[in-house]
Amino acid sequence: MDKTNKIPLYLQLMDKIVAQINRGDYVEHDKLPSERELCEIYNLSRITVRQALQELEREGYIYREHGKGTFVAPKSFDQPLVNLYSFTEEMKRAGKKPTTKVLSFEKMVVDERLAAKMTLNVYDEVFKVTRLRLANDEPLMYETSFLPLKVFPGLTEETLTMKPMYNVFLEHYGVRVTRATERFSATTVRHDEAQHLKILENQPAMLVKRYAYDRDTLIEYTISVARGDKFNYTVELS
Amino acid sequence: MDKTNKIPLYLQLMDKIVAQINRGDYVEHDKLPSERELCEIYNLSRITVRQALQELEREGYIYREHGKGTFVAPKSFDQPLVNLYSFTEEMKRAGKKPTTKVLSFEKMVVDERLAAKMTLNVYDEVFKVTRLRLANDEPLMYETSFLPLKVFPGLTEETLTMKPMYNVFLEHYGVRVTRATERFSATTVRHDEAQHLKILENQPAMLVKRYAYDRDTLIEYTISVARGDKFNYTVELS
Repeated sequence: MDKTNKIPLYLQLMDKIVAQINRGDYVEHDKLPSERELCEIYNLSRITVRQALQELEREGYIYREHGKGTFVAPKSFDQPLVNLYSFTEEMKRAGKKPTTKVLSFEKMVVDERLAAKMTLNVYDEVFKVTRLRLANDEPLMYETSFLPLKVFPGLTEETLTMKPMYNVFLEHYGVRVTRATERFSATTVRHDEAQHLKILENQPAMLVKRYAYDRDTLIEYTISVARGDKFNYTVELS
Repeated sequence: MDKTNKIPLYLQLMDKIVAQINRGDYVEHDKLPSERELCEIYNLSRITVRQALQELEREGYIYREHGKGTFVAPKSFDQPLVNLYSFTEEMKRAGKKPTTKVLSFEKMVVDERLAAKMTLNVYDEVFKVTRLRLANDEPLMYETSFLPLKVFPGLTEETLTMKPMYNVFLEHYGVRVTRATERFSATTVRHDEAQHLKILENQPAMLVKRYAYDRDTLIEYTISVARGDKFNYTVELS
């Protein structure tokens, strides 16, 4: 570390750690030296080391587990929010093998709140499907979908287990997602979701609510819990 | 609760609680009855009550504090991601009084990593500004901005304290944000951020990284930590 250099010491330390990660000295989930060790290695104050680690965390290079230490963050997926996208197609594009595990499948009738959201009538029937989405066998998203029975009569769990949902929509029902509204918010992972996602409870997650349409008909309302360490969403504004 | 009704009991309970919130029986941050109390009031099983509360949480009606109970969630802002937007303008549109508190202001030179992000050269100077954004005196966002000195020579903390940053850009420098790239991810709030935002540490937050441009010149790189309970971002895809 060069204390005569005009670049702030915390930035110099960040550069050093980022270079080590980029070179592969540390790989995903490797533990970094502790704050105290970094102070000693580079002869820096605790406040400088802490600032570097905080900014590296905000920049997505590292994550911290309370009481356990600092680790190299996994590579995350960057999803451009321009056109309609599907998990399956995006994972293939990233060179990963997407799979889906149907966790539950039931038929139910909707209440007032859900009817209003889905432009249905109270007592209309829907399928409620919860699914786990994986890439190269790593669980990434926990999804709950509501699908109107009148759009997808006779839908079965077996069909959804065999092929991607949007393929089932198209091949079995001639239904195509032509547009969607997605609403993003930040949340933390619940106990049951964490067990499926194989991460710790209360880790950050992106909550994505998708309303998908075939022209003017709502065909899908899905709530996705996407691992915060794995997904970025990018939008261009002008 | 009507057990002969075809609508699942957890949905009936959700409807009931949503109606109470909408009618104003409960207002923002009011404590709801405990799981056990709800079981007794409505003669429902623990599993049904828990499912209703979990879904109400995912739908943004309530939030839970570990060991404290369940509370009515505050109303959140819905930011459409279509055109360029500013915190100041959006809060005014929502009928709120936006204010900004400059927490720190310093000049520094950039390292390799930051230079690459901002299309600057190593050792170029930037202003690093941290600001707290409030609406009706309630803190909502914690922002760290990096502004190239060559674009904003002579910028002072006083100027930024007096008027909205984008007004300073335009009125003092003739610089206008014409386009921006924003990257969204989920995180949790750090200790120091939580103190400024007046929320608990580790609460969910949206991390928004904005790269703003005046035509082809990058004029701003900002990292915003937006309270997860206060912000939704909506996008239309087709």
